[in-house]
Amino acid sequence: MSSPRHPQRPAAHELERYAGLFASRTRAMKSSAMRDLMAITERPEVISLAGGLPDTSTFPAESFAAIMAKVAVDNCAAALQYGPTEGLLIAKDAIRRVMAAEGTEVDPEDILVTTGGQQVIDLVCKTLIDPGDVIVAEAPTYPGAIPAFCSYQADVVQIEMDADGMPIDVLEETLDSLEREGRRPKFIYTIPNFQNPGGVTMSLPRRKRLVEVAAEREILVLEDNPYGLLRYEGEPLPTLMSLAGGEYIIYLGTFSKILSAGLRLGWAVAPAPVLAKMNMGKQGADLCSSSLTQHFVAQYFAEGRWEPYLQSLRQLYRGRRDTLLGALAEHFPAEATWTQPQGGLFVWATLPEYLDTTDLLARALQRNVAFVPGRGAYLDGRGAASMRLNFSGVSDAEIREGVRRIGEVIGEQVELFGTLTGSRPAAAAPAAPAPDAELADVLQLPRTPRPGAQRSDGRR
Amino acid sequence: MSSPRHPQRPAAHELERYAGLFASRTRAMKSSAMRDLMAITERPEVISLAGGLPDTSTFPAESFAAIMAKVAVDNCAAALQYGPTEGLLIAKDAIRRVMAAEGTEVDPEDILVTTGGQQVIDLVCKTLIDPGDVIVAEAPTYPGAIPAFCSYQADVVQIEMDADGMPIDVLEETLDSLEREGRRPKFIYTIPNFQNPGGVTMSLPRRKRLVEVAAEREILVLEDNPYGLLRYEGEPLPTLMSLAGGEYIIYLGTFSKILSAGLRLGWAVAPAPVLAKMNMGKQGADLCSSSLTQHFVAQYFAEGRWEPYLQSLRQLYRGRRDTLLGALAEHFPAEATWTQPQGGLFVWATLPEYLDTTDLLARALQRNVAFVPGRGAYLDGRGAASMRLNFSGVSDAEIREGVRRIGEVIGEQVELFGTLTGSRPAAAAPAAPAPDAELADVLQLPRTPRPGAQRSDGRR
Repeated sequence: MSSPRHPQRPAAHELERYAGLFASRTRAMKSSAMRDLMAITERPEVISLAGGLPDTSTFPAESFAAIMAKVAVDNCAAALQYGPTEGLLIAKDAIRRVMAAEGTEVDPEDILVTTGGQQVIDLVCKTLIDPGDVIVAEAPTYPGAIPAFCSYQADVVQIEMDADGMPIDVLEETLDSLEREGRRPKFIYTIPNFQNPGGVTMSLPRRKRLVEVAAEREILVLEDNPYGLLRYEGEPLPTLMSLAGGEYIIYLGTFSKILSAGLRLGWAVAPAPVLAKMNMGKQGADLCSSSLTQHFVAQYFAEGRWEPYLQSLRQLYRGRRDTLLGALAEHFPAEATWTQPQGGLFVWATLPEYLDTTDLLARALQRNVAFVPGRGAYLDGRGAASMRLNFSGVSDAEIREGVRRIGEVIGEQVELFGTLTGSRPAAAAPAAPAPDAELADVLQLPRTPRPGAQRSDGRR
Repeated sequence: MSSPRHPQRPAAHELERYAGLFASRTRAMKSSAMRDLMAITERPEVISLAGGLPDTSTFPAESFAAIMAKVAVDNCAAALQYGPTEGLLIAKDAIRRVMAAEGTEVDPEDILVTTGGQQVIDLVCKTLIDPGDVIVAEAPTYPGAIPAFCSYQADVVQIEMDADGMPIDVLEETLDSLEREGRRPKFIYTIPNFQNPGGVTMSLPRRKRLVEVAAEREILVLEDNPYGLLRYEGEPLPTLMSLAGGEYIIYLGTFSKILSAGLRLGWAVAPAPVLAKMNMGKQGADLCSSSLTQHFVAQYFAEGRWEPYLQSLRQLYRGRRDTLLGALAEHFPAEATWTQPQGGLFVWATLPEYLDTTDLLARALQRNVAFVPGRGAYLDGRGAASMRLNFSGVSDAEIREGVRRIGEVIGEQVELFGTLTGSRPAAAAPAAPAPDAELADVLQLPRTPRPGAQRSDGRR
């Protein structure tokens, strides 16, 4: 190619040349804070508590090779070939077993195998969302859902959670108020178990009520459940899908956190008419998911290794969660609060409200440590004082050292503002330094909170 | 789940319950004729000339196992982990080598690794197409592109090809006429080499002129090139991307036809501002492509096996193409015509115009043989007398027997209509039998051609 071109930073004249051809949705498109951080934090010297990475280092290489050797002998040509859009039956059988382990029986006919759980979010939006349609989500919500919601130009209304997840009475008030404006949300997006990024779990009474509300009001619920089998304490709770008998529920599952994210295999279970449209949407999007990785999953499940491996992940992550909670107690200031997740991969920490975690991140990166700034989990600029911390993809030693460094940065900021009493610094306080603004730009984080919207109900 | 639900045939009351929640795009969504046929033709007794399947049976199982064993030893944890959205550098290096083999130099920075070539089509639409925007495509066009175009509610204008591909003078007239209506197409979609389904190749003068037209009129060209390296005779022609120096060209490549479709790995090369938006679109769609299959590709290329394997595919497919052309000469009626592809996977055959290949397919399936009816390659009901025949995924014996059976069905129809003179049957001719209508429904083929639009310019 004669002209040097760099996708990361297109030149202004080049942008101008093509911008006139862009669809209007590109103006609403956003990068995910996580994805952008991934590029920044891939330097080996950085301790990243920003990722949502499973620890794949404990998967035995000899198992991987043995599984693949068996696929080679039994199914080489099929693994290298196209498959049906809905997925291979052998993969659906593994999915059926994973869902049964959470008490949810499902017919293979009702499953669509997808290219990761992310594709389910995309296909649900494709099937349901016209520009301006309302999606109700939790606050904070999964940062990776935001680019999908934005690219379909949805209007996302976020409902602040408490320690029991989304409060359904607040949801109902919100739905009432939307109804008065003549607006019915197309779906309610929730991660009931060990929410990403909140770390909280929806209580059983709320689950039961949510399912009733969905049926009463004829609104779909997208139940995103990547972590349900990663519970480290307490009793498992039934899925919304099992409580609802499938009606008005779209279930999202994935192998990313219980086996491997590199397979890019997830699935949807949905009412037949919705699933049929999602299947059509998938045909246009990528024809079918990888036969090779579906055969890997099938062989892995055939060998009965999945439950012991899952058990080993639970043990590993439980220990790391405890390390993280211990390190937070040691290194974070007394004014900080954080969630106590019973499972999953994340803790959500909230600092005194005069601190801005996007600014903190810039300083933290100078010390080679990263987290996801809270604003990446909101669409309206809220979350500025919070951060998501991952404990699954990092060793105990890294967690301790990472939290120590973040605590140090926080301590310096608290001291700088002379706010041991917790009072907010005056408007004349030092402005955020230039590199921080650039970082917020790279991260595409909203920088201007809606007036009055910032954590105004004090629920967290 | 308590309620039995079947995605293939949702009950009417169920459809009604959810239809009110669907996005308006779902009304435009279409299944691909190929994809639906895949479900019908997966019975082992069916000889399917309908697929676009590479022959994966010649890929040595011991190579597959050896590649995976090496990935296990060197990169197990990384292969099971998330990767960057733009793709792994090791995969981009393989892509660079594939493109160099067609004389197209490319910077890894300019590549986006995608989940198959299909995802490139989807992301290009996502980046460029608002509902009602015009896409110019060839006639016939790739049946798998149609679901993507439709789900973005594009208005697709198809330009009839001749033996040298899309006639650029007709393209320019079409662009002029659109301009008079105040409409500028967002992109021109072309498969210059061994077009799917047409089997024809765009001549060098037309390539040069197309690149000029795109730059003059500031319209992007989506150059879809899955088969460029599968040439069986004649001299290779330069890619549009190499002729244009990258400007106004989005290049689509894939490993599906030169290595494996089951990997679901393709790529885009595009001007930086366009690639940046496609990257954002991919984040929302599936986060990243499979690390596992990217590692497979990297290891495969590291071992230097790709060129000898490609050479073996060329030999295999050349022979099958010759078998197909020979069988057509033997079994198809004298009034039929077909293309003589110099490469790729497909022959496009056109029967006397009073025959309808959708009806023929129903009869052919009763004899356990399948092809893609021509209407699956048009958006406006044209193509009723044509069919796409694949020769890559079937043995010589199957090709001969399959074509013999199709020829038999055609012969019966020709005889039935008493049209040895080629005259069109009267309106009172027997109606298409019920099962055929059902098939057209399953295939979602348009049944009512626009008046006067059917192959009116006589170019094919």
